[in-house]
Amino acid sequence: MLVEIITIGDEILIGQIVDTNSAYISKELNRIGVEVYQITSIQDDRQHILNALEDAKKRVDLVIVTGGLGPTKDDITKETFCEYFDDTLVESAEVLQNINEIFSKYIKKEPLPANLKQALVPSKAEVLQNPNGTAPGIWMEKDNTVFISMPGVPYEMKHILTEEVFPRIIKKYNRPYIYHKTLLTYGMGESAVAERIEDWENNLPTDIKLAYLPSLGRVRLRLSSKGKNKQALQKAVDSQMEKLNTLLDDIAVGFEDETSIVERVASLLIQRKQSLSLAESCTGGAIVKEITAVPGASSYLKGSIVPYETQKKVSVLGIEEALIKEYTVVSAPVAEAMASSATKLFETDYAVATTGIAGPTKGDGKDDVGTVFIAIASPKGVVSQKFSFGNNRERVIIKATNKAFEMLLKEILKN
Amino acid sequence: MLVEIITIGDEILIGQIVDTNSAYISKELNRIGVEVYQITSIQDDRQHILNALEDAKKRVDLVIVTGGLGPTKDDITKETFCEYFDDTLVESAEVLQNINEIFSKYIKKEPLPANLKQALVPSKAEVLQNPNGTAPGIWMEKDNTVFISMPGVPYEMKHILTEEVFPRIIKKYNRPYIYHKTLLTYGMGESAVAERIEDWENNLPTDIKLAYLPSLGRVRLRLSSKGKNKQALQKAVDSQMEKLNTLLDDIAVGFEDETSIVERVASLLIQRKQSLSLAESCTGGAIVKEITAVPGASSYLKGSIVPYETQKKVSVLGIEEALIKEYTVVSAPVAEAMASSATKLFETDYAVATTGIAGPTKGDGKDDVGTVFIAIASPKGVVSQKFSFGNNRERVIIKATNKAFEMLLKEILKN
Repeated sequence: MLVEIITIGDEILIGQIVDTNSAYISKELNRIGVEVYQITSIQDDRQHILNALEDAKKRVDLVIVTGGLGPTKDDITKETFCEYFDDTLVESAEVLQNINEIFSKYIKKEPLPANLKQALVPSKAEVLQNPNGTAPGIWMEKDNTVFISMPGVPYEMKHILTEEVFPRIIKKYNRPYIYHKTLLTYGMGESAVAERIEDWENNLPTDIKLAYLPSLGRVRLRLSSKGKNKQALQKAVDSQMEKLNTLLDDIAVGFEDETSIVERVASLLIQRKQSLSLAESCTGGAIVKEITAVPGASSYLKGSIVPYETQKKVSVLGIEEALIKEYTVVSAPVAEAMASSATKLFETDYAVATTGIAGPTKGDGKDDVGTVFIAIASPKGVVSQKFSFGNNRERVIIKATNKAFEMLLKEILKN
Repeated sequence: MLVEIITIGDEILIGQIVDTNSAYISKELNRIGVEVYQITSIQDDRQHILNALEDAKKRVDLVIVTGGLGPTKDDITKETFCEYFDDTLVESAEVLQNINEIFSKYIKKEPLPANLKQALVPSKAEVLQNPNGTAPGIWMEKDNTVFISMPGVPYEMKHILTEEVFPRIIKKYNRPYIYHKTLLTYGMGESAVAERIEDWENNLPTDIKLAYLPSLGRVRLRLSSKGKNKQALQKAVDSQMEKLNTLLDDIAVGFEDETSIVERVASLLIQRKQSLSLAESCTGGAIVKEITAVPGASSYLKGSIVPYETQKKVSVLGIEEALIKEYTVVSAPVAEAMASSATKLFETDYAVATTGIAGPTKGDGKDDVGTVFIAIASPKGVVSQKFSFGNNRERVIIKATNKAFEMLLKEILKN
């Protein structure tokens, strides 16, 4: 059983927004054994929508369309579905009730005529209720292909997908089991990883697929397989993954989904009842943001400071001014002092500190843009490392953030 | 002249990564008058790639393919291009030299055989040099359609696009001028905005297109037009945008691209030689991260603190313990005290403070998940507001961040 996702919206094709819905839908479909064959993004244009629906029908069993269902004039998906299915729009009592409920409960105003028009659906469509918004999802069929239309607003789409679409897919289609497992590695290039695991890769069973996903400072290695027998499948992939993990012992930091590096740090600190603080200069809050994005951060994160101005490293964080004068603010001794001071200020076992030049301008120091010192304070002392992360501000911050988590995890595991 | 972007990679279709390359390419193409007709994401599968290339040829003049060019076995784009163009791979001296240079300069090791294989390109291809990586881009033609293949690694792709692809497109194709202008509004729903501007929208010239882009707490309104005469086009769109801006005077905060709300705050503070600090509890660094992501932040941002543990709001930030006891930590008085204390600790004119319950658990307070107090301290005093942002942690943090910038800008404009 194959799916195509069609996302409708000029904003995607002019690059004004990044289409994140497709990745979400694909990932969730995989969990219930449904494979996405293609993702197609098209314009808010009647003929283009009609062509895309017809092309997709030739390729797949189920077509999931998002976008173009808003109350304004630029949204034409519903009307175009009507044309494709040779149907007419009729008012749905259940959708109308939902719209009135949303307005009385949340918006506390009378719905506008444009809002009430959202209750119109193609007469042959099955309604997929959207309690989070006024645009309903719809389910229609043509020549044995199912067509689903959902709003593009992510949290509305997600609810309809889980609550309305999935139960219907599970009932209607016979699906295999799809299993992915991804190993996260830090600090070695893609080709070097490939060379090290070459023998193992050559002996991999043909029904297990290996993929390399390199990104800044890390390579993710994904094993995928599908089949009828869930347990046999999992066992086969897990056993290969165990071999791979052993081969990459020194650079592997865990499995994706199961645990990100942030979650791994979190669970170790929570388990050991230890605490963390941060003093971020050049990363400017990027590290603490990753930490607080994960529920439960308050169990181990005591606090964080961004002493952005040099003088604040002295007055708020308590670094000695003489140290900065002697070594400059972008230096190993200052990074280490920042980490130590953070453990004192926030009374924590561990601290992460960064100081560097994110760019684009060099500042007044001697170092190049991209120079970053990262220090980790632990109960055993303070360590630091110097990096050159290139001259792109965004990439410097991302690389420094990734590297900081890698160093922190290493120190925690040593203790 | 129309373009299709094809992104290749199973990781996209299983939802492991979000395809951000397409949005980047689309936006940049628009700047040089090139319109993207469709974006297609497909699997690392020979037949699927061949089908997608052939289908795209029927739709557009130029096909831009990214991904599948790595040195490992799962990457098959180059071989499949060879098959599609009935060509063979030959070693390119210039690519080989680039690979050797990258290894001697940055990696400081000898290239592996897998790296050297990257120097093979189809014999009919024009090489698009990639100084940031070992996989070259290629440019090929068939039946008047141009096919470009580039690596999927974003910063490699971006360099090739700007330095190699664009000069060739500009030379080869006659292009119209495309102009978009987007107004950012905060605090009013899509339908209410549509109702207010209905008369204006109905009288909009047919060659200017209006789009509504709603997201958490904001609606973006985009006007688009294309044509031969750049100045006439800009003038027509700008004059409509001026009318729209006047109609939405109370909710408009500026134009996208030109200035984000963060950049607007930054430029006002820099211009007025005023300074900013933050005390973020429930937003956990998300606000300061947005601020420091923009170059020049050090001109006005003195520092920021995340006093995550309640006790640290007392010991580090200097809030009175009695205040927290009386009102609880998630309260207007505590938010206001946090903002005031931040201005003192970091010696700034303005401060932003947040305290709330991001969830998923309620904590020990009386308030529901999603309750957030945001306070802004300015030279004129402190203001605060209470919000209910729902029960999804990620959305609570994003909404609070957006709202904080909106409130901060409003206070700055009052002063």
